[in-house]
Amino acid sequence: MENLPKEVIMKEVGPRDGLQNEKEWIPTEHKIAWINMLSNTGVKEIEYSSFVNPKMIPALKDAREVGERIIRNPDVTYSALVPNMKGLEFALEAGIDRASVFMSASEMHNQKNINKSIGDTYPILEEVIKEAKDAGKLVTGYISTVFDCPYQGKITPEQVLEVCDRLVEAGVDDLSLGDTIGTAVPTDVEKLLEVLLKHFPKEKLILHFHDTRGMAIANIMTSLHYGINRFDSTVGGLGGCPYAKGATGNVDTNDVLYLLHGIGIETGISEKKMQQAGLYIQNILGKQLPSRSLAYISNA
Amino acid sequence: MENLPKEVIMKEVGPRDGLQNEKEWIPTEHKIAWINMLSNTGVKEIEYSSFVNPKMIPALKDAREVGERIIRNPDVTYSALVPNMKGLEFALEAGIDRASVFMSASEMHNQKNINKSIGDTYPILEEVIKEAKDAGKLVTGYISTVFDCPYQGKITPEQVLEVCDRLVEAGVDDLSLGDTIGTAVPTDVEKLLEVLLKHFPKEKLILHFHDTRGMAIANIMTSLHYGINRFDSTVGGLGGCPYAKGATGNVDTNDVLYLLHGIGIETGISEKKMQQAGLYIQNILGKQLPSRSLAYISNA
Repeated sequence: MENLPKEVIMKEVGPRDGLQNEKEWIPTEHKIAWINMLSNTGVKEIEYSSFVNPKMIPALKDAREVGERIIRNPDVTYSALVPNMKGLEFALEAGIDRASVFMSASEMHNQKNINKSIGDTYPILEEVIKEAKDAGKLVTGYISTVFDCPYQGKITPEQVLEVCDRLVEAGVDDLSLGDTIGTAVPTDVEKLLEVLLKHFPKEKLILHFHDTRGMAIANIMTSLHYGINRFDSTVGGLGGCPYAKGATGNVDTNDVLYLLHGIGIETGISEKKMQQAGLYIQNILGKQLPSRSLAYISNA
Repeated sequence: MENLPKEVIMKEVGPRDGLQNEKEWIPTEHKIAWINMLSNTGVKEIEYSSFVNPKMIPALKDAREVGERIIRNPDVTYSALVPNMKGLEFALEAGIDRASVFMSASEMHNQKNINKSIGDTYPILEEVIKEAKDAGKLVTGYISTVFDCPYQGKITPEQVLEVCDRLVEAGVDDLSLGDTIGTAVPTDVEKLLEVLLKHFPKEKLILHFHDTRGMAIANIMTSLHYGINRFDSTVGGLGGCPYAKGATGNVDTNDVLYLLHGIGIETGISEKKMQQAGLYIQNILGKQLPSRSLAYISNA
């Protein structure tokens, strides 16, 4: 294990990716209290909401209020999802350190998700990226379905590379590679990283796994062997999969912390505080979250 | 991934390890029907019950009837847990291809679990192993708590090696190394295998992971890189942890199959049939099992 990174930077995307598909309304007060808890866990990045059209994602229609009212920890980088110039405008008003733009590596998923072709998405994102950079913000480019698409099947590393290239040219600081439907296995991760790491330094790549099939921790372990040291996760494993109802969500932050700390990698995050944040939102949602860690501590 | 085995032999231990801690009585008819389903999945080994004192494990007090009445598939090796000569006698009458003897690598866990010191356990197992071999049976030696003990903490590879050596001297055909409380991380697996593979061929070693902390699939992936090609699992992830109520059980057979088949390793097992067997027992137990795969297919 001599090639493993010494430190990993986790981005907590629970307040955004974790909640965006929740059917039940979570009151703004609870979101703010929860994000404030997360801000004090030692986590270095939090994606607090999404400035997508509230008709599309009603669960996060209070993004502005959340952004305005959370207590900012100066050691935390706060980001929000931004689909277009209007979203960026709102996000800048509400306060962000980082704008997260997004598109798919799959033509069909991009069409279904954004209602535009990949080709037509680039100019929109290019404008947003430029504007965000001009405003002095960091920008992450999320790329969905980098392994499998629910409509189109396998996505090749070359298809992913093409989107990465365009977003990097447009000025993103880094790329978050999403296993959107949580179907990848470690050999898929290897094949993708073998290609991308020939073109980009590892610091530019963030891996974003969902745990639909229970492979996320193994996929993170494989990524670590390639020197990847940035991962997205949600506390409690929040976040379903719109393509498989009842399936589990993102990889659980606490499960990732158990892995990382167990193999001697530092994150700066308190497992205990992150578990408390998980229990808090589990209690608000009133249902058992898929996290192994929360099941363990709830019942220990 | 060039060092991965081409084929893996899975042993389904659901009927034994999966059910042994169930509080609710599962009628014998249901156990038999379920084991018969498992026998037709393509799985090559099934541990069908335990011949431990029924007062200790009431959930499996029908071991003899189960052993006598299941329909044996000639392509499947049937095993049962056997603690002593009396258990072996019953097991031989009920019919086994393989006897599974067991002890702990941890002195304190062995004391609590078997009510004997490790030193006092050897002669008992030596007699059972000899008798089983004389009867023409295969014998597996299960070793519990090879990474961590709930009473004693960390267990060193050297402690495990000592028990392995004694059991191999006594005549076991192979060793099943149990992460009994499901706390190991991949670096723990590496450290243990680095030591054991200097003394035993990889074919002698079986890895037996519980998924308490969600690390089992990553630990299996690590084991595969060492050439390990035999794993124990339970369909649906059955089997709790007596040391952490509500915690998840053994690694789920279907999650392992998703990994293995996904990375190109053959098992001979039909995922669809194994999922059906998982849904069957989930339905009998009347509760959602921790399996990611079952959550996925139940709701897809």
